[in-house]
Amino acid sequence: MKLYGYWRSSAAYRVRIALNLKQLTAEHISVHLVNNGGEQNSAIYHQLNPQHLVPVLVDNGEQGELTLSQSLAIIEFLEDKYPQHNLLPTNIEDRAIVRSMAQAIACEIHPLDNLRVLQYLVNEMGVSEADKMRWYHHWIHLGFTALEVQLSHHCGRFCFGDKPSLADICLIPQVYNAKRFNLDLAAYPNIVSIWDECQQLAAFADAAPEQQHDAS
Amino acid sequence: MKLYGYWRSSAAYRVRIALNLKQLTAEHISVHLVNNGGEQNSAIYHQLNPQHLVPVLVDNGEQGELTLSQSLAIIEFLEDKYPQHNLLPTNIEDRAIVRSMAQAIACEIHPLDNLRVLQYLVNEMGVSEADKMRWYHHWIHLGFTALEVQLSHHCGRFCFGDKPSLADICLIPQVYNAKRFNLDLAAYPNIVSIWDECQQLAAFADAAPEQQHDAS
Repeated sequence: MKLYGYWRSSAAYRVRIALNLKQLTAEHISVHLVNNGGEQNSAIYHQLNPQHLVPVLVDNGEQGELTLSQSLAIIEFLEDKYPQHNLLPTNIEDRAIVRSMAQAIACEIHPLDNLRVLQYLVNEMGVSEADKMRWYHHWIHLGFTALEVQLSHHCGRFCFGDKPSLADICLIPQVYNAKRFNLDLAAYPNIVSIWDECQQLAAFADAAPEQQHDAS
Repeated sequence: MKLYGYWRSSAAYRVRIALNLKQLTAEHISVHLVNNGGEQNSAIYHQLNPQHLVPVLVDNGEQGELTLSQSLAIIEFLEDKYPQHNLLPTNIEDRAIVRSMAQAIACEIHPLDNLRVLQYLVNEMGVSEADKMRWYHHWIHLGFTALEVQLSHHCGRFCFGDKPSLADICLIPQVYNAKRFNLDLAAYPNIVSIWDECQQLAAFADAAPEQQHDAS
């Protein structure tokens, strides 16, 4: 398998954790989101992903190469094809709760706070740097406040009980991102505790941005 | 089952289509997103969903009532629990492609263009109504341009071949929304063709916003 990603991309970080938890290996190919006008905008990358986003996974398929975009679709594919070390509970209701928590991050927080959106706010909407940071903090606080309630019903050492899952895979990159932007996490004890727990696992630690070969 | 939704919510619209395609019925309970300061912000609704978003599905679970938020998690739950009239292909690679297209809408377009985000842009970021519309159109055009390429590889009468799937379930509400905001769809012939095809199916037509009891 090949994973096209970028060290600081939260979505690529998710897939790196998933691969590690499943003990799968992939060749990591860096797509630098800033240099050269953003390598994700190149004509070559367009062939891989017309969305011009990372990550993209390329795997051997039944009919030649399978090229997949969207991190959660990639992770569900890994779960379907390589069921060892499952990332979703086997019980249908438990699976649903884990997916719900994962999407509360992937659909409600991350899309609003990623690089291209923050750039568009400043460059095209004329929003000040201070207001950009207010925007950023607003959506994370809103999302984390709700998630903290969900976690209080379901978490143990991890988001859902005592086993890492798709929810932790989404949470950890979002917390990494929040820490980078100096967000105060004091109001979110469950989130902080799960962050600390995940850092103890090599699958998470090895997937961290600073551990990637393209980190700078 | 009970579905808490709102006639114009794209995410509730998705779940309505999914229920119809699966020939499942639910009691539809309206949560008015505008009246009374937004009923999703009430203390009662907070108990159902601390994210203060629709939809929420309540189903009988193994251990009492299961209360689920996030439309894609709800639809995957319906697919797991009620496998009849499947919304995802059975082949692992095909499932992955359908999920990838669905998430290209649910994670890259809809989160940026929904009501609360547009309200925040104007009320808190001081963005003009004209710039708000520019923002709205930008993210839809960006997303639809990429999706149109993906569809050219996979679509038949529907997003993936000749059977409606999770991808159509996400696409149709987004197109409905785009039409409401007078977006020119001429550059997206596959999307327009799939829209037309879906309108012929009762499962989609009956789920349309104007057909809901709380439409006004």
